[in-house]
Amino acid sequence: MRLATLRDGSRDGALVVVAKAGDRRASAVSVAPTLQRALDTWERSRDGLEALATRLETDAAFGEPLDVKELAAPLPRAYEWVDGSAYPNHVRLVRKARGAEPPADLLTNPLVYQGGSSVLLAPTEPITLGDPAWGLDFEAEIAVVLGDVARGTRAAAAERAIRLVMIANDVTYRGLVSAELAKGFGFFQAKPATAFGPFAVTPDELGAAWRDGRVFMRLRSTLNGAVAGDTETGPEMHFSFADLIEHIARTRAFAAGTVLGSGTVSNAAPERGVSCLVERRALETIAHGAPTTAYLKKNDRIRIELLDEHGDGPCGAIEQTVIE
Amino acid sequence: MRLATLRDGSRDGALVVVAKAGDRRASAVSVAPTLQRALDTWERSRDGLEALATRLETDAAFGEPLDVKELAAPLPRAYEWVDGSAYPNHVRLVRKARGAEPPADLLTNPLVYQGGSSVLLAPTEPITLGDPAWGLDFEAEIAVVLGDVARGTRAAAAERAIRLVMIANDVTYRGLVSAELAKGFGFFQAKPATAFGPFAVTPDELGAAWRDGRVFMRLRSTLNGAVAGDTETGPEMHFSFADLIEHIARTRAFAAGTVLGSGTVSNAAPERGVSCLVERRALETIAHGAPTTAYLKKNDRIRIELLDEHGDGPCGAIEQTVIE
Repeated sequence: MRLATLRDGSRDGALVVVAKAGDRRASAVSVAPTLQRALDTWERSRDGLEALATRLETDAAFGEPLDVKELAAPLPRAYEWVDGSAYPNHVRLVRKARGAEPPADLLTNPLVYQGGSSVLLAPTEPITLGDPAWGLDFEAEIAVVLGDVARGTRAAAAERAIRLVMIANDVTYRGLVSAELAKGFGFFQAKPATAFGPFAVTPDELGAAWRDGRVFMRLRSTLNGAVAGDTETGPEMHFSFADLIEHIARTRAFAAGTVLGSGTVSNAAPERGVSCLVERRALETIAHGAPTTAYLKKNDRIRIELLDEHGDGPCGAIEQTVIE
Repeated sequence: MRLATLRDGSRDGALVVVAKAGDRRASAVSVAPTLQRALDTWERSRDGLEALATRLETDAAFGEPLDVKELAAPLPRAYEWVDGSAYPNHVRLVRKARGAEPPADLLTNPLVYQGGSSVLLAPTEPITLGDPAWGLDFEAEIAVVLGDVARGTRAAAAERAIRLVMIANDVTYRGLVSAELAKGFGFFQAKPATAFGPFAVTPDELGAAWRDGRVFMRLRSTLNGAVAGDTETGPEMHFSFADLIEHIARTRAFAAGTVLGSGTVSNAAPERGVSCLVERRALETIAHGAPTTAYLKKNDRIRIELLDEHGDGPCGAIEQTVIE
């Protein structure tokens, strides 16, 4: 099933179930008023939400028309936003462009950072340019929403904690990254609010494209109408979401509603393009000694969509415009 | 006023107002069911909470007896936990012990890290030793709970966003710190769940001890009954909470309920003792070439309390035991 959050003036919005066609929604407040509450009570709420989803498919008169602009992020605020870096190609490329080696344990020790989660952007909410020297970039990613995860959960048991799949734009100010990396305390000012796609879907909604704790689909990023990247999300995701859960749960527990990201989806084949501009700049630097692609500027439009083999996008599209 | 959260089996517990003597509590659910809800609606809820606090002081028959063991953290889960490092002496000491210089911008560019916040420990909840090689340590700190903070908020306007003051034990696995610092993505496995003191108090509850965005009191840490540190919290807090807010809000907004920590309280005068064991080990290393103090072990008891000039502790005490 597909879930979404309708903006209603409250901090958490109102939970709705969305038809597979993405054109209709049904209020789910009789089951759970908010997505967080549904996650808090998943064992009790799931069946009721599934019943609403079934009725949307069988009764064309049920529900209301859906306008994506009325939606907030599925979780407008979340208790944790943890982002991994599960695609080694991204790390290798960016390091190579600055003449550095990738970390020796790149394939055995996941990179993860803890992001801010009290303000998460709606799929159509603008991104703020800020100081142009900050180098605004997008990062197209897949994210999962977790149920409760006990401390010490191992990868083999972790997949059952994955409740929902979403897409994300992990907005980054590239110009602020290196100083924060050098401080060692992690990204902070370099990571403004992250945006999420409109629909949070149960893994079964992806069919055979959900396997081994990974999504096997295409993540397409379009900048001002031109495809920047059309990347395969499955084969090069070195650490599965289950692996990432084992890593983050080594010394602490997580409560339901934790959002966990894949990091920028990145493919070794250059013809696949990029899911963030810093990778294109890295390729340019490796080939020509310097980047020619500029970071985002005012009025730029970024669209991110996760597509199946038929060109359908179960998680909906992120469509954001850059404002000053 | 003093607020606390009663464990009632729910994820957020039930909000109570606590008498100044710390011995009685009154249910606040008629005003707001949880502390998060009170923070979400502070302009509407504050007066009602104050009225309950006043009645607790004037009517000795009002409320129920309070047992600290029945309390959760004031926010058992929070939307953000951001921890600063506002006491330069801590950074200088730890770096000096390993023969390193402090960062050149130590006094102009605050160090902050984003911590996990979906599971926060009650004041009397045990701490897990884990692998003894992980080097379990406590870190006694002051923390504030914020209202909504707009992106770009400057220090001069930031103090009005500070709603509540608490104490914290930012539990740390020292043995996992250096590898994570080297990765640059920030602390993760090195920081298990943080514990908070029982009472979250409005700044006015501290009287003249709250000024310039700082608390001017003593933070006493006691390990197995022996005082480890009795540190002054005010004079050496180089960055005020308002300064820290300006730093974290440079590129994004924060929603009500964000918890912001001071970092380990640390004084240059050695006779003040320490608010974490790694500092004592640093002093031993500087004096004798190697540390002699061990990290925490099973059954160790740590007590942390913020004391005023009369020896009263408005935020209550953290009292935790180390378990395997």
